[in-house]
Amino acid sequence: MRAAVVVTGTEVLEGRVRDENGAMIGAHLAAAGVSLTRTIVVGDGLDDIRDAVRLAFSGGVDLVVVTGGLGPTHDDRTMEAVARASGRSLVEDPAALALVQAALERVPVRGPHAARERGARKQAQVPEGAVVLPPAGTAPGAVVEAGGTVVVVLPGPPWECRAAWEDARQVPVVARVLDAAGGGAPRELRMAGVVESEFMQVLDESDPEGRGLVVGVCARPGELEVTLRPPGPEADAFTALLEARFPGAIFSRDGAGVEEVVGRLLAERGEALATAESCTGGMIGARLTGVAGASAWYLGGVVSYSDDAKHAVLAVPRSMLDEHGAVSGPVARQMARGARAALGADWSVAVTGIAGPGGATAQKPVGLVYVCVAGPGHEEVRELRLHGDRERIRTRAATIALHLLRQALAG
Amino acid sequence: MRAAVVVTGTEVLEGRVRDENGAMIGAHLAAAGVSLTRTIVVGDGLDDIRDAVRLAFSGGVDLVVVTGGLGPTHDDRTMEAVARASGRSLVEDPAALALVQAALERVPVRGPHAARERGARKQAQVPEGAVVLPPAGTAPGAVVEAGGTVVVVLPGPPWECRAAWEDARQVPVVARVLDAAGGGAPRELRMAGVVESEFMQVLDESDPEGRGLVVGVCARPGELEVTLRPPGPEADAFTALLEARFPGAIFSRDGAGVEEVVGRLLAERGEALATAESCTGGMIGARLTGVAGASAWYLGGVVSYSDDAKHAVLAVPRSMLDEHGAVSGPVARQMARGARAALGADWSVAVTGIAGPGGATAQKPVGLVYVCVAGPGHEEVRELRLHGDRERIRTRAATIALHLLRQALAG
Repeated sequence: MRAAVVVTGTEVLEGRVRDENGAMIGAHLAAAGVSLTRTIVVGDGLDDIRDAVRLAFSGGVDLVVVTGGLGPTHDDRTMEAVARASGRSLVEDPAALALVQAALERVPVRGPHAARERGARKQAQVPEGAVVLPPAGTAPGAVVEAGGTVVVVLPGPPWECRAAWEDARQVPVVARVLDAAGGGAPRELRMAGVVESEFMQVLDESDPEGRGLVVGVCARPGELEVTLRPPGPEADAFTALLEARFPGAIFSRDGAGVEEVVGRLLAERGEALATAESCTGGMIGARLTGVAGASAWYLGGVVSYSDDAKHAVLAVPRSMLDEHGAVSGPVARQMARGARAALGADWSVAVTGIAGPGGATAQKPVGLVYVCVAGPGHEEVRELRLHGDRERIRTRAATIALHLLRQALAG
Repeated sequence: MRAAVVVTGTEVLEGRVRDENGAMIGAHLAAAGVSLTRTIVVGDGLDDIRDAVRLAFSGGVDLVVVTGGLGPTHDDRTMEAVARASGRSLVEDPAALALVQAALERVPVRGPHAARERGARKQAQVPEGAVVLPPAGTAPGAVVEAGGTVVVVLPGPPWECRAAWEDARQVPVVARVLDAAGGGAPRELRMAGVVESEFMQVLDESDPEGRGLVVGVCARPGELEVTLRPPGPEADAFTALLEARFPGAIFSRDGAGVEEVVGRLLAERGEALATAESCTGGMIGARLTGVAGASAWYLGGVVSYSDDAKHAVLAVPRSMLDEHGAVSGPVARQMARGARAALGADWSVAVTGIAGPGGATAQKPVGLVYVCVAGPGHEEVRELRLHGDRERIRTRAATIALHLLRQALAG
């Protein structure tokens, strides 16, 4: 089974809004074993969308998923474009209109009545014969068949898109494609502390591709993500080989991120965590609390961006800040101790560093970061020298800190 | 001038890694006035990339930018695909090899020597006649012409891609395309507190498109982003109309996000900010510290995810937590007061809420959020009822809190 995705929206194309829907659909299709040929991002123009939908059809795909451009305004033209590309007329669907009107009652929306009514009628237009998907927000989605290809149309706001996709999967013609794909999702391994060239060496020596295993490798900040297709005996054998060569490096076999793994380890131990962040400014806390149920093992943290905050909330002595500077091993250690004490936590992780572009000195360059992990009978400070721009240094520091914590928790 | 972008990487296509490069290139092209026709995301397969590059060429574009797949491993095949699509042979470039070898000396890379050397030779292969771009990491990029179209090839890791794109812009054939586009970047307005249907009403009444102004509108969580093309007298007139209809709603005219606007307002006042976050878990701190130079106006904050943290660090009385619950107006107010006091800040913003999926009660549903903004002579608590899933509720709560702070700072 082959599929293509079309993401519409000039704001996505021009980089003002990050695509979430294409990524979400891509992940779901991959998990179902559907081969995704390409994702095409296009602007809001009617012709652009129609051309992209036609381009998506090309090469013979079983499923096309189109997202975005279902709003009430004049530049929301996806339904019209899909109707044209699939050779159907655009009609006002009474059931869709009732759904939109009910949604407008449910979700408090301001605005003049006439404009809302006109918007509702526009949002109720779908290609003739389409299955209408109930709106999570105000825009219904649709499923329509065109010459052997199933076309799914979903709204653009990411949470509405996620909800509508869940509904779309239940529509028989869509379910048939997903079922026929047979769930050949790849084995997904995540590894930490292994660089690409080391991995490549193992690949060269063992030649798993010669035995029919397709190995994909992607370097992420501080991590390697490895996909093995198909899952099965060859994937098992290669996984075992990686374990032997890089003991402890595989930290996830089910797609879970390091935040989730940290949470599981803490929950198993019945212990709780606090954070102390300077250059990462809350990124670690935000990532940890992105995991539903984090309150079972995360107490909270301190963003000690200024020296005053480090002193007042985390009890870092002024003399230590004066002598060693805020970006130093001793301060990272005291931040971790201070966070444990202030929040009554079993474990803590602290980060202080220079993310740039300003703030560097001759002794302390941009990219110098100290991480401390502290817990029962455990205290460890690590100096990092990171490369890249502000965003990369911050993201990478947060990821490495989470991995040091994970390793400490795993014993 | 017209352009297309190709983003390569199975990990991007299948949603395991978020695309950053396509968004970055799209934003730069839009700012230069280049019309971006589409961005195509494809997997790592040689044929997929070659087909996508050919597809990108179709319709007659002046510039094609291809990112990713320049690493040392076997599945990094972009240069080969670009060479094939542009009818050139792939050759080992001595200058590129020297650059890669120098980069390997500079950046500490582990791994066996033979694998590194083979990786270096692979990364030094470019289409014959290409201009080689020096690597920020270890992979050189390239610029090559193919039948009137300029093809720019950039590495995949986002910070390397950003650096290589800056170099590529200086290459004469690329500079010529960007210059010829004439910088027709759109006027970009950001508005808060206006819903799409209200905006649509103004659009219908004033019909700026009838006078040659192309208006794009994109709803983001808590914000509307409006683009006006071309910038000029009609854009000015429409901007003035929006100001009259929605006083104070336009908070940015230069693409700056609300975090940057908050920072500018604080810097102008010479005052400093602290944060207190519960359900947002550090997202507000992370967003504020994403602004370079944030230390001039942001002291830090407390992620008070647990009741204990609210009590211990922010001095929220136990009796108040017992009586009102952690998600309540009084607790939000005390969190804001506690953050001001603990960090010695002039201003503070506090957020407490139920992001779900767990944690709701009959009285307190998922999506109930309290925000408090406190400052000199100012204290304001707002109750929000947000819709959507965990991620949307958190993101939206953070955005709304930043806007309430901005409004308070703007007076």
